[in-house]
Amino acid sequence: MKNILQSVLNKEIPLTNAIGLEIINYSHNEITVFAPLEKNINHKCTAFGGSLYSVCVLAGWSLIYALLKENNVNGHIVIQESNIKYLKPVDQNIKAQCSFNDNAHKMRFLKTYQRKNKARIQLTTKILQNDNDAVIFTGSYVVHQ
Amino acid sequence: MKNILQSVLNKEIPLTNAIGLEIINYSHNEITVFAPLEKNINHKCTAFGGSLYSVCVLAGWSLIYALLKENNVNGHIVIQESNIKYLKPVDQNIKAQCSFNDNAHKMRFLKTYQRKNKARIQLTTKILQNDNDAVIFTGSYVVHQ
Repeated sequence: MKNILQSVLNKEIPLTNAIGLEIINYSHNEITVFAPLEKNINHKCTAFGGSLYSVCVLAGWSLIYALLKENNVNGHIVIQESNIKYLKPVDQNIKAQCSFNDNAHKMRFLKTYQRKNKARIQLTTKILQNDNDAVIFTGSYVVHQ
Repeated sequence: MKNILQSVLNKEIPLTNAIGLEIINYSHNEITVFAPLEKNINHKCTAFGGSLYSVCVLAGWSLIYALLKENNVNGHIVIQESNIKYLKPVDQNIKAQCSFNDNAHKMRFLKTYQRKNKARIQLTTKILQNDNDAVIFTGSYVVHQ
């Protein structure tokens, strides 16, 4: 699934190449994505806020994409609204983690979509630095046919 | 000022080159920025949400940068928190507008910064499409020494 996600992202959203986005870990409930600081740097030698946002929004998108794929379900995934808090500047390579709250959270979303052809889910992505939260992103995603 | 902003952005935030960001208009209270759909496209032939966010956050950043520059004031501008609502998919070139609420809004912010060496301002950036709001971004920016 890691390789599928990587190739889908690079093909379908060309800007992921400029950001250097890499899927580094994927389990059924969690995804970790990476982007090198070098490609996303700003004048203060920290990561540009737009890059941090992009990495976060793509982590959630990828987690949902993988869920649909694993269950042989087709759907369009769109981001509807999001909030991002920048708690600390990120002066290292960017590593973001996004997960479903638990298995029930994930299955409820999938079943709603299968029943109604439309479902909404809120996901949180965090960027950690030295074990502290540096960025907290919360996005509302909608899947529709 | 348009040319100064363009060169600062391209130099200090290299990702603006990948996004194709252009400052197309600047007055003292308002800025309009542009990015071609082609560089920011996704698989549905609409603009990637991370690109739309980046254009919005940079419009606000640029407006504050210009205010400081025009008043010969130095400062670091950082985005602290933001919210973005995607109301409609953007299937045209991206054009975003950001403005101060009014002259008093701008001057209060500048004076607070000059007095306290730190000030916060909330700015709204909108992406319009066929005269309708397609994206509404609200960002809290902090300027510090």
